[in-house]
Amino acid sequence: MNEFYQKDIISIKEFDREKLEKIFASTDKIMQLNSTERRKICKGNTLAYLFYEPSTRTRLSFDSAMASVGGNSLGISDITSSSAQKGESLADTVRIMSIYSDVLVLRHTLDGSSKFAAEVSEKPIINAGSGTEEHPTQAIQDLFTIKKEKKKIDGLKIGIIGDLKYGRTVYSLLHGLGNYDVDVHLISPESLRVRSDSIYEIKKKLSYTESTDIEEYIDELDVLYVTRIQKERFPDEEEYLKVKGSYVVGLDLLKQMKDDSIILHPLPRLDEISTDIDNTKNAKYFEQAEYGKHVRAALLGLILNENGF
Amino acid sequence: MNEFYQKDIISIKEFDREKLEKIFASTDKIMQLNSTERRKICKGNTLAYLFYEPSTRTRLSFDSAMASVGGNSLGISDITSSSAQKGESLADTVRIMSIYSDVLVLRHTLDGSSKFAAEVSEKPIINAGSGTEEHPTQAIQDLFTIKKEKKKIDGLKIGIIGDLKYGRTVYSLLHGLGNYDVDVHLISPESLRVRSDSIYEIKKKLSYTESTDIEEYIDELDVLYVTRIQKERFPDEEEYLKVKGSYVVGLDLLKQMKDDSIILHPLPRLDEISTDIDNTKNAKYFEQAEYGKHVRAALLGLILNENGF
Amino acid sequence: MNEFYQKDIISIKEFDREKLEKIFASTDKIMQLNSTERRKICKGNTLAYLFYEPSTRTRLSFDSAMASVGGNSLGISDITSSSAQKGESLADTVRIMSIYSDVLVLRHTLDGSSKFAAEVSEKPIINAGSGTEEHPTQAIQDLFTIKKEKKKIDGLKIGIIGDLKYGRTVYSLLHGLGNYDVDVHLISPESLRVRSDSIYEIKKKLSYTESTDIEEYIDELDVLYVTRIQKERFPDEEEYLKVKGSYVVGLDLLKQMKDDSIILHPLPRLDEISTDIDNTKNAKYFEQAEYGKHVRAALLGLILNENGF
Repeated sequence: MNEFYQKDIISIKEFDREKLEKIFASTDKIMQLNSTERRKICKGNTLAYLFYEPSTRTRLSFDSAMASVGGNSLGISDITSSSAQKGESLADTVRIMSIYSDVLVLRHTLDGSSKFAAEVSEKPIINAGSGTEEHPTQAIQDLFTIKKEKKKIDGLKIGIIGDLKYGRTVYSLLHGLGNYDVDVHLISPESLRVRSDSIYEIKKKLSYTESTDIEEYIDELDVLYVTRIQKERFPDEEEYLKVKGSYVVGLDLLKQMKDDSIILHPLPRLDEISTDIDNTKNAKYFEQAEYGKHVRAALLGLILNENGF
Repeated sequence: MNEFYQKDIISIKEFDREKLEKIFASTDKIMQLNSTERRKICKGNTLAYLFYEPSTRTRLSFDSAMASVGGNSLGISDITSSSAQKGESLADTVRIMSIYSDVLVLRHTLDGSSKFAAEVSEKPIINAGSGTEEHPTQAIQDLFTIKKEKKKIDGLKIGIIGDLKYGRTVYSLLHGLGNYDVDVHLISPESLRVRSDSIYEIKKKLSYTESTDIEEYIDELDVLYVTRIQKERFPDEEEYLKVKGSYVVGLDLLKQMKDDSIILHPLPRLDEISTDIDNTKNAKYFEQAEYGKHVRAALLGLILNENGF
Repeated sequence: MNEFYQKDIISIKEFDREKLEKIFASTDKIMQLNSTERRKICKGNTLAYLFYEPSTRTRLSFDSAMASVGGNSLGISDITSSSAQKGESLADTVRIMSIYSDVLVLRHTLDGSSKFAAEVSEKPIINAGSGTEEHPTQAIQDLFTIKKEKKKIDGLKIGIIGDLKYGRTVYSLLHGLGNYDVDVHLISPESLRVRSDSIYEIKKKLSYTESTDIEEYIDELDVLYVTRIQKERFPDEEEYLKVKGSYVVGLDLLKQMKDDSIILHPLPRLDEISTDIDNTKNAKYFEQAEYGKHVRAALLGLILNENGF
């Protein structure tokens, strides 16, 4: 029996190196199968999505992943138009959705929501983003992309830039990277540095440096992971515009980087990566999105098949 | 040829005991089939949903039912964002949706909407709730649940509690129960008693008692069917709070009930059933939701297959 | 290899007579196949819809078309609730959606949007309506309907009535008709006449007459194509009401028409065609909607299968 069968995906913290490598291997397999073989993997299975926070991108990534392995999807893409608005509890909604499906994909504003959901659900829960720190499938997707594009993760120097304070993607990625032997360099405006409470646990397994200057270590990086800086995070617009301008990744910056470095972004992107980067060999964010679909397909296949696929 | 083939499901009043028992038998069959066999039943068929009144729960019950028998679903979950907003008539919308599908599931605020739709549609119509009195598939689901959990319907003492005035579910259930030899006990605040015009026909085939006191017959009931009491129904909040408090089904009340009694609810639930009831053997509302999916799958199978399944 | 394989459908202007006839032949084939054979055509393929302008009708036509040939659909029916709201560019959204699917259906307010999308998309783009002039699949559907119902297009006298100024459907149809030897008669209020810039190119290949009087040539028409007149287009309501009243197609007008004339409408209809026309042999707008589904299914089949079907 494969160890992911009927298991929840709640937190990136549950994934050690061995587990991650198994998922990577399954993702590789998904990518090698032809479309007909692939569609046998979850044939006849139904995924239910339950989004308390809208995220078209994540929802469609799961929906298309499920379609690629032959299953179908249904659900609530925006809870404000659903029964939950009538005051139904998360527990009841999850219970019912688990009756309608074989696996449940939950996105919620609150920390701990997926863990709670898993306790009442009859079917496995996949956390598609919750609270301030958790987005485990995004982190696995990011790690897989690094592995795929750099052929390894150990030994890499990885820069993460942007809003490090509020981005759940960043914390999940850092936890994931904690399983590898990497040097992490965090780049952000002073006001958007990683939160000390959230970084506390990460510190135990990961060494990192911090700076506000994007150019400080730029020539040493193997991977530059860019995230959005949201206007809403700043008390005044002038401050925002100043910061925004100094964190745009453009061709000038790329020239200072290693020739074989790669640039990633969880998307959607605003203008933190200039579009003239898109066609360089270093830009890998669209590949990253594609890998994300395959990683999710692999996870669905593992969760729904006792003996894997 | 099976008698439901290509037929509309408009009103619970059209279902006599024999018809109900046939649907129950088909539902039992659905539940016994394995997933692969089940998905042959409506393979290649398309269900279109057309909701003039949003109901995520009902829509997903149909969607998942259709998926379980191998069909797919499409449609309009909230008409306010559709062409109908441009002023298109119900007749035209139904005609077009019937071109896009093999069976149409309609939810509408008006009495008679489904009957009207059936006259213009090229494909069978299933009423998924209309006007003040009709929700036939919910009633069949409720009857099936009682039969399944109590092994019979005849001879049972059935309490129905809550908002009996405005709940279409209640009237549909009463009509359905009229086909059986049952004692019905209606419990509601004075201001939310069943409407005399709506109960008129039911009275001819069903004997019932009424009270405002939940405890009056509680120890005699085999089934307690709980419905929501909606705040909007009360002229002032104080009145609402008084009533609400006295109609909560909790462990204290359960202790007064027969050991093998069951508690049902069409869901979503607010706090009219205390969550500490959920894990008792008497709570059957989540089973009820699951049976609902299978009942709908059976109906779809019967409507779309000339010789049944 | 069929010439439509992996090709975009951007503009009706790209379709000459030969191409149109090939699509018509494929549509005929779709209509002759039984449901099981039909569902093999796009089995395992995914259509992604991306609507920057809501259109339930067009979306469901594509969704049901894709289902009829065995594929599935996913996407964004209303971009305002999606990541694009976070400021993502059309280019990025298209790139990502093309990762999630095999073919992309785009509806957008701007002229040129589909052409632009095709440049960045990894998968074929179908224009489902853009800007002021283009709705190519609607035009092909309209031409197919005329051919099917009148057994020919050449030699017909075709009236087009209503809002000829703002309707993209009208311009696309006129371009399509430019491939045939037809007489076109345009009927509209003075203020809603065809735009001279948009008709400029059409004039080169199509001869037409214009009038404001619906009855002028009514007895000569083989086809009357009716479009909506939208209240919003008029500066004051009185003017609107005057015009509206004089462009309603009712039984009186029908009596003046040739016995074998047909009446078409892209739908949704308000009251520009009286409902007592619906059951006459001349009313073909619901057939037109059905043909639209098959035309789209044929296009999907051609685009997604190297050797056609």
